[in-house]
Amino acid sequence: MTASSTASSPAASETGDPLLLTPGPLTTSRTVKAAMVHDWGSRDANFIAINRSVLTRLVRIANGSDDWATVPMQGSGTFAVEAMLTTFVPADGEVLVLINGAYGKRAKRILDIAGRRTVVHETAEDTPPDLAAVEALLASNPSITHVFTVHCETTSGILNPIAQIGALAARYGKGYLVDSMSAFGALPIDVQAMHIDAVAASSNKCIEGVPGLGFVICRVEALKRTQGNATTLVLDLHDQWLNMEKTSQYRFTPPTHVIVAFHQALDEFDAEGGVAGRGGRYRNNCRILLDGMRALGFRPLLADALQAPIIVTFHMPEDPLFVFAQFYESLKARGFVIYPGKLTVADSFRIGCIGRIGEKEMRAALAAIGEVLEEMGMVGQIEKTA
Amino acid sequence: MTASSTASSPAASETGDPLLLTPGPLTTSRTVKAAMVHDWGSRDANFIAINRSVLTRLVRIANGSDDWATVPMQGSGTFAVEAMLTTFVPADGEVLVLINGAYGKRAKRILDIAGRRTVVHETAEDTPPDLAAVEALLASNPSITHVFTVHCETTSGILNPIAQIGALAARYGKGYLVDSMSAFGALPIDVQAMHIDAVAASSNKCIEGVPGLGFVICRVEALKRTQGNATTLVLDLHDQWLNMEKTSQYRFTPPTHVIVAFHQALDEFDAEGGVAGRGGRYRNNCRILLDGMRALGFRPLLADALQAPIIVTFHMPEDPLFVFAQFYESLKARGFVIYPGKLTVADSFRIGCIGRIGEKEMRAALAAIGEVLEEMGMVGQIEKTA
Repeated sequence: MTASSTASSPAASETGDPLLLTPGPLTTSRTVKAAMVHDWGSRDANFIAINRSVLTRLVRIANGSDDWATVPMQGSGTFAVEAMLTTFVPADGEVLVLINGAYGKRAKRILDIAGRRTVVHETAEDTPPDLAAVEALLASNPSITHVFTVHCETTSGILNPIAQIGALAARYGKGYLVDSMSAFGALPIDVQAMHIDAVAASSNKCIEGVPGLGFVICRVEALKRTQGNATTLVLDLHDQWLNMEKTSQYRFTPPTHVIVAFHQALDEFDAEGGVAGRGGRYRNNCRILLDGMRALGFRPLLADALQAPIIVTFHMPEDPLFVFAQFYESLKARGFVIYPGKLTVADSFRIGCIGRIGEKEMRAALAAIGEVLEEMGMVGQIEKTA
Repeated sequence: MTASSTASSPAASETGDPLLLTPGPLTTSRTVKAAMVHDWGSRDANFIAINRSVLTRLVRIANGSDDWATVPMQGSGTFAVEAMLTTFVPADGEVLVLINGAYGKRAKRILDIAGRRTVVHETAEDTPPDLAAVEALLASNPSITHVFTVHCETTSGILNPIAQIGALAARYGKGYLVDSMSAFGALPIDVQAMHIDAVAASSNKCIEGVPGLGFVICRVEALKRTQGNATTLVLDLHDQWLNMEKTSQYRFTPPTHVIVAFHQALDEFDAEGGVAGRGGRYRNNCRILLDGMRALGFRPLLADALQAPIIVTFHMPEDPLFVFAQFYESLKARGFVIYPGKLTVADSFRIGCIGRIGEKEMRAALAAIGEVLEEMGMVGQIEKTA
């Protein structure tokens, strides 16, 4: 990258890297990354103790009791979601899939490939599911065995009503599976109160670890009934869990460095006050971002009441002076990497507010965005008529 | 760990950690691990360039031409093997599986779960496949579509004749799939000369990266014909390849830090002289280990001609003074972590000779083993009558 020719000096993380204002991988702390400069025997007691601590602490974050267990899954968050769906839903199962973005659609695709029947309730990407319609589907389709939803649909950043959906699933006696990838650790989730059988997330989102590990927090009684459901060896959560119960070891080589970094990230998560502290910082980041972007003339996709404090989608300005590729590169030259495209149907771009960033970094990002607008000839602001 | 009370000071890697004399994760260099103390945007051009370099260099190590491509797979080596088998073998395919250890058996289990038919040729764990019997199976079973074998069966450390098996597969017009997990980078493999359609390996073996990424080097013409075969979304190599061709990006979050470390490991691999240099150091490690262990009275499982320079299996001494758990812990207290159990049928234990270790470390390990034998009352040597 060439250096910026403007007044602001490039922003940087604690390790001098550009700040990642994306849905992940995120900017992590210097100490989380430093935890990776050691090698560990994956079957040695020292590593086993670290791994066990990680799994136990994840259950507590979801308010699970001793009747819940975390089953780790090497790979990424989607590996954990596919493992959850293909392990919990039997061959003769049927899933009500609630879709309002790319991650709901991905779950449907996973179930199609695995040959699991689905019923879909889809709403627009800026609209939560219609709970009355969901209830009507549950009432009229007794063959439905499970309900699946996405906690924060990262496509747009919309927050879905997982507690209310869980109440419906419980009322109709259905299993309840949740993808909480981008929300876990920042937004409260209560597997007991929300009647959740399994919730999937990953190491590199709001816990602020590095990528390489997904996990599924499972109600053990429900997990026990999944033996033989899985359609693969590596994604079989039941087999992964049973083997770990018996031996404390992974069946297949775990990403040791990633897991040790995740352990450090959990220490830092606790030190920040857990979900309340982490979520509080992100809400503050999100508020600063929304206020600042609105002042610059940008319009968010979502109504404020639907906006999770994870990632914010903005309508692409219609002004022909605004060229997104130039916007992206000029922000990167100033030390800010945003998501280089869109997942929404609407013409838009996204800026994340999670990771090891706070008020200072968000304000620096806004200053850089103002400079880039000026550089593009927009005198530091989108035309209000855009 | 408490400090050892013996004369030797604990051995240690460049970062002060115990040396891992295992089949992996391995001891890696300080510089490989140091590459992980930065964060990268997984969809940003800088990371994409690093990833592309990794994939291209892996093809060259296998002597692939431009007609070959590396398809990465998040997870571990077994994730790559399952992806290879379930993507290359169609629903109506049939695989001749050559088994002489746990990894051949695992491939059979993967194929069973995926509903792919198999024909098995199994030999004892200290015996390579019988090539005449393999040819007879190919001649008498025209429904066989693919042959699968393991390059170095890590269960025992045995080297299998992958070139000869490839010649048979080619003669009978079968696809040829190889698991080269623990051998890739240390033992020569030539995808062209050996008629290989796909070979799977991982980041944390002889290239000396950290765990978290598997990969499959594929003949592109064969890969192109696999569309629609896969039984899952995340393990679909064809989809992973096609998306990377189109966008240069991973479909799902890659382990960015692991991949950047792998890139550094490939630099160090090249600097050591590639397969010849890396394999040469390991052969020297293996010779020192075998000579030293024999001098101490241990007996290797394999005949020398069958022994790959990766990991060595030793018969468990019958002397009642030899308690393996004590042996393991006392070696660990001295800074050496070995594999804490066995995979073989024979009562045995394993010591690896791969990773960032050389002559000095192997001799230190042998000295420590001698001390531990003394500590166990065996006056530094196994009874020759054991």
